[in-house]
Parts: sequence; structure tokens; C-alpha cells
Amino acid sequence: MTQPSAAPIRFVLFQPSHPGNIGAAARAIKVMGYHELVLVKPEQQHPQAESRARSSNARDVLLNARVTETLAEAVADCGLVFGASARRRRLNWPEYNPRQCAAEAIHAAATKPVAIVFGNEQAGLTNDELNLCNGLVYIPTDAEYSSLNLASAVQVLAYECRVAEDIPDPRPEPESPNASSEDIELFYSHFEQVIVNSGFLNPDNPRNLMRRVRRLFNRVHLDENELNIMRGILSSVDPAKRVEPRD
Amino acid sequence: MTQPSAAPIRFVLFQPSHPGNIGAAARAIKVMGYHELVLVKPEQQHPQAESRARSSNARDVLLNARVTETLAEAVADCGLVFGASARRRRLNWPEYNPRQCAAEAIHAAATKPVAIVFGNEQAGLTNDELNLCNGLVYIPTDAEYSSLNLASAVQVLAYECRVAEDIPDPRPEPESPNASSEDIELFYSHFEQVIVNSGFLNPDNPRNLMRRVRRLFNRVHLDENELNIMRGILSSVDPAKRVEPRD
Repeated sequence: MTQPSAAPIRFVLFQPSHPGNIGAAARAIKVMGYHELVLVKPEQQHPQAESRARSSNARDVLLNARVTETLAEAVADCGLVFGASARRRRLNWPEYNPRQCAAEAIHAAATKPVAIVFGNEQAGLTNDELNLCNGLVYIPTDAEYSSLNLASAVQVLAYECRVAEDIPDPRPEPESPNASSEDIELFYSHFEQVIVNSGFLNPDNPRNLMRRVRRLFNRVHLDENELNIMRGILSSVDPAKRVEPRD
Repeated sequence: MTQPSAAPIRFVLFQPSHPGNIGAAARAIKVMGYHELVLVKPEQQHPQAESRARSSNARDVLLNARVTETLAEAVADCGLVFGASARRRRLNWPEYNPRQCAAEAIHAAATKPVAIVFGNEQAGLTNDELNLCNGLVYIPTDAEYSSLNLASAVQVLAYECRVAEDIPDPRPEPESPNASSEDIELFYSHFEQVIVNSGFLNPDNPRNLMRRVRRLFNRVHLDENELNIMRGILSSVDPAKRVEPRD
């Protein structure tokens, strides 16, 4: 097998229902030069005969697809995570069109894998999954008929990534790579613990506080340096760790 | 039914083999706001149950699809015709990427329908079909695995057209609309007759002469005024019609 030359863009299907769509998605990404397919809790055991049939000669991508229990596992090592969504949400979440998403994805993929997450055919992505995303990507559709097939959505994004790879990006490589999704999750746990310790967050009545915190930090794409600084600040202010000054 | 607001872009499948692809193509275009699907000599009678299943709620587009015997019929009233092709040809044919194709298509669709023609799943488009096209559109793919599914190819082009509709085009509307494909065919017949009459083309040994003539004029997208001028010139020089000057 030859080494894939494309950027490390990972296509993640969250709880996909239809094996046919999984096979077609494998083909859709391979034809654009990508190889990383991850299935989070597929509804039927993977792989099914229909997936194989629809994958055509992308069977290698299909059979190498990683299957995970959670979305957090699927994107743990990623420096940037996009959630693909058909419906426009009212949440104050950063929105990208496919072209913008692809440009950001290819730029960030220079330092760490980038994930694009696609929701279940019926349910899409819920807020729990969006909490792990840095931004949403909307594929424009007709206002009255917006039912884009799952594999078609994967095809459009894979195509835009493929095209973006050929467009020169004038931005210099980042000084420090984006922090990984896994490290960001540890940061949020730490953050939550500190504001519980400080009495700001009541664990019995958390409201939407951590969701708001996540939304804020997901939007700014913390790099590794920034994350270390924030972790240091959290430790320094944690009342549970505070050493009473000596007299 | 509400009036479609999108530009008159016609998606033409030439001799499609798989009913599933026809249904998926109907869905792919409708989701981007387009409604015109034409099938040229589908291998199986249209519509099949599998087409219906894959079309989802785009059944209206599927069932309204026009079926024709020839590609010429399918594109007769079009002012611009693109042939979608996966393989790069050595012919000297104008090439567009999907984004360029979409920009040209939306611009030209202001005056006449525009067709994008997709070849059979295995055979693609042959030179006979390309003779009716003003240009080729190539969807970029991986160099080693370029087997793009037919409905996926339709999805990428429909998506690019949808996006192009939202991008302001600084070019003014053309002074005269592009000539229709049907009128261009009449012009080629006329042209051929005149050079047969003049002795330049030997009907028993036509070589590739008319193909070269077609390629030249297809490239320049004759508008209606230009076509009328060319027809007038042809008539004026036709030896069969020349009236010997009186003494």
C-alpha cells in the first residue's frame, strides 16, 4: 500500500443508521485521497454486506474504519473538530461554510489530525456532541428541501478539502500546534473542578455554565502553549490547593 | 408546488446503468435547489423501484425526469453544455474545474438553460457526446483511486452551482444570448455542406475535419448574433448557391 499523501483529515460518522451510507462514505473520502474513517456506535454491527457493496474499491478504507464507543475517543488526538449540521442552530456557535471549513482544516492539519463529524441520518448532532466541536460547518441547501444524504455530505466536505489542499495558504504555520481534543477535555475537567472548589459552580445546580465555558474556549482553538498557561493559572487559583501564606 | 428559484441548470445522465444512482442523483440536485433531470437512453426502463427508494423525498424530480433517445435532444435548447469526465483526455478540449464550470453555468443560465452531462458509470462520455459539449468539467480526485460514484459527481457539481449562485458575478449580462445547441447543430450541418460543395471536404474521406471545426466553435460559445453572421457568410460563399454574375 502506498503512503497517503493527503492531509490527516478524519471523517467521523456519529451513530450512522444505514450501512449503505457507511460504504458510500468510505468511497467518497478515498476518491478524494483521504483514508481515515471512524464510526461512533454504528447502529448495526460493522461491517455489513451493504457497506461492502457500496464502498466499491474503497473496501480498504471501509474495513480499516475504527469503531469507537464515544465521540471523545474518536477525536481525542485532534487539534480541530468540526460538526457538520444541516439545520441552522440558534446557539452562538462559530459557523463555517464548507469552503471555509476546508481551508481551516487543511491549515490545522499541518500539526495535528482534524476531524469532521457527521451526525446520525435522522437525529443529526446533539448538543452533547457539539460540546466537543470547535465549530459547525453548514452545507448550503435548498430552503425547502434540505435532506442531504449522509454520504453526499461527506462527499462535499471531502471534495472541498481536496480542493483546499491545492490552494496556497499564505498563513505561516502556527507557532504552537492546536491543543488536542483530549487535552482540552482535561482542561475543562480541571476548570470545572476549580470553580466548584471556589463555590462559583454549584454541582447540584450547574445550569449551563460549563457549556458556556466550552463554547468560549472551543471558539478560540487554544494552542498547546495557551493551554499550558491556562492550566497553570487554574492550579494557581484553585482554593483546594491554595497554601495558606505563612506568617 | 412552489416555483423553483434556482437557475435553469439541467443535469443529464447519459446511458446510466444503475437505477440507484438515478434516484440518488435526483435527490442530489433537488437538495441544492435544482429540478431538471434528463436521462438519455437509461439501460433499464425508468423509473425502477430502486430509483424511487434512493430518491427519498426527491421523487418529484425523479418522476418528472425527461427520457430521451439522444443527447442532442436532451440539450437542444441549451446555450452551454458541459461534459463531466473523470479521465483527463488528451484532446484539445477546454477544461474547467467544478468551480469554474459552476461560475460559467450560472452566468450563461441567465439567458438559456445550461446542461451538465454525466457519462455512463463504466464508459463515461465518448467523443460523439463530447462533440455536443462546449467544454469538459473535471472533478479532482485522488491520482490512484479516481472512481467517483455517478451520484456523487452530480452532488459535487450541483453543490458548486448552488454556491456559485450566491457569489456576485461582476460580468454584465451578454449582449446576445448564447446560441442554442440545436441551432449550433444546424450551423455545423450547413458548414459541412458548404465545404463539401466547395470540394474542401471529401465525404468519402472526411478525416477528422468536422470534429476539428466543432471543437473550435464549441470553444468560443457562439452567441445568437454571431451565429446569424456565420450562417450568412456560409450562404454567401456556398458554391451550390452561387449565382453566376451576369455579363
